[in-house]
Amino acid sequence: MTETAIYDCLQYENDNINRALEAIRAGKMFLIYDSDSREGETDFVIPAGAVSYRDVQWMRKDAGGLICVAVDPVASRQLRLPFMADLVRDAGKFNGELGEVVEKEGDLQYDSHSSFSIWVNHRETRTGIPDNERAHTIRKIGEVAESALSGNEVRFGNEFRTPGHVALLRAAEGLLEERRGQTELSVALARIAGINPVMVVCEMLDDFNGKALSKEDAKEYGQKHGLVFLEGQEIVDAYMLWAGKEC
Amino acid sequence: MTETAIYDCLQYENDNINRALEAIRAGKMFLIYDSDSREGETDFVIPAGAVSYRDVQWMRKDAGGLICVAVDPVASRQLRLPFMADLVRDAGKFNGELGEVVEKEGDLQYDSHSSFSIWVNHRETRTGIPDNERAHTIRKIGEVAESALSGNEVRFGNEFRTPGHVALLRAAEGLLEERRGQTELSVALARIAGINPVMVVCEMLDDFNGKALSKEDAKEYGQKHGLVFLEGQEIVDAYMLWAGKEC
Repeated sequence: MTETAIYDCLQYENDNINRALEAIRAGKMFLIYDSDSREGETDFVIPAGAVSYRDVQWMRKDAGGLICVAVDPVASRQLRLPFMADLVRDAGKFNGELGEVVEKEGDLQYDSHSSFSIWVNHRETRTGIPDNERAHTIRKIGEVAESALSGNEVRFGNEFRTPGHVALLRAAEGLLEERRGQTELSVALARIAGINPVMVVCEMLDDFNGKALSKEDAKEYGQKHGLVFLEGQEIVDAYMLWAGKEC
Repeated sequence: MTETAIYDCLQYENDNINRALEAIRAGKMFLIYDSDSREGETDFVIPAGAVSYRDVQWMRKDAGGLICVAVDPVASRQLRLPFMADLVRDAGKFNGELGEVVEKEGDLQYDSHSSFSIWVNHRETRTGIPDNERAHTIRKIGEVAESALSGNEVRFGNEFRTPGHVALLRAAEGLLEERRGQTELSVALARIAGINPVMVVCEMLDDFNGKALSKEDAKEYGQKHGLVFLEGQEIVDAYMLWAGKEC
């Protein structure tokens, strides 16, 4: 089945998914809520390659969480991006107290493990934190991952240094079969859309009560600003359809 | 010389420092600009123990950088907080490519090394990102460091897990003799003020041009919101005076 045919089929199945696929292909922002039974948080989501400094500014002003870049598991492996937990755990073998700080199975109430990798700055940035520097780092992560996925030999350290101001998130090896956080959901949608599977995510916070923004308020924000609002299950259904090439 | 006498002396010397000492003792926000020859960035600064979720919200809305906690070098040693660069470098011994990503002497244009340690969530938080959860993590970092500085045996891993959503910054062992970033400047001021030397810092970004907020605009923001604006050199001078007990 051609990609267009699958797309047509998905168009028929779920209009929300189609609007998100249009947005993602056009490099536009949209929203993903994971699920009531997980974090219960909505993230701003946009393809890494499309990010301008105005998008970084928008995310920090209107979303408010950490601005992170979710990387496809295949690209993560090629770039040898470690899980931060593994990295600290390894260091903890030589420093027992450090080992105690690492998250363990059962520590997180909403999943088995976090997806954090290292924090980086592109080597062309200065301090790394201004919007234009974070946008540059983010776009370069997209470029480097795309190059690795195209079969090129990439030395990640030639382009980036750590510590830095942009968090890398490593999508689970089994993607949605293994984990259904915004990391995997956004990367899965990029795969369906046929774009470079490197996505920026940032949690939406409430500006009044100190909590995460509620699902209802996130939906309302989406309507007000013309942003598609997707729930995790919609992406899971579309991905299973796409992966199975059945519809 | 008693602390009051030093304070009186500093009152005489620099009114700006005195206003900052008043703010810091009252648990209020103030601003620190490092210097024209370093990052050239202004940070929001507030004692960790005083942080409410509204302060976290204020920092993410009006400052916009990363919300980090600067920890006194003595407390950092007691809590065995590693520099992130050392941690990744150690891991790089077993994964050469990872070693290439770590910042090296000469990589940063404005200093010899960054002060990042690990990123943590307090174990009582859920996802760790909402304002009330970040505020809780921050206050607990303050409590634990204070307890360690008071001579108590503290197991950092009993209270926190990593990865997380609040960055720890480890102030340089030699403090201002070694490094003069917002990390060391804020901790030095806390020492002069006689409060627990654990400080929250967050870079101020410009909302229009993608850059760090200029010194002039940061000053203007401070005037508008009644926040003391300090330059690094003022803190260095006051600290040398205080440390030498001469004035």
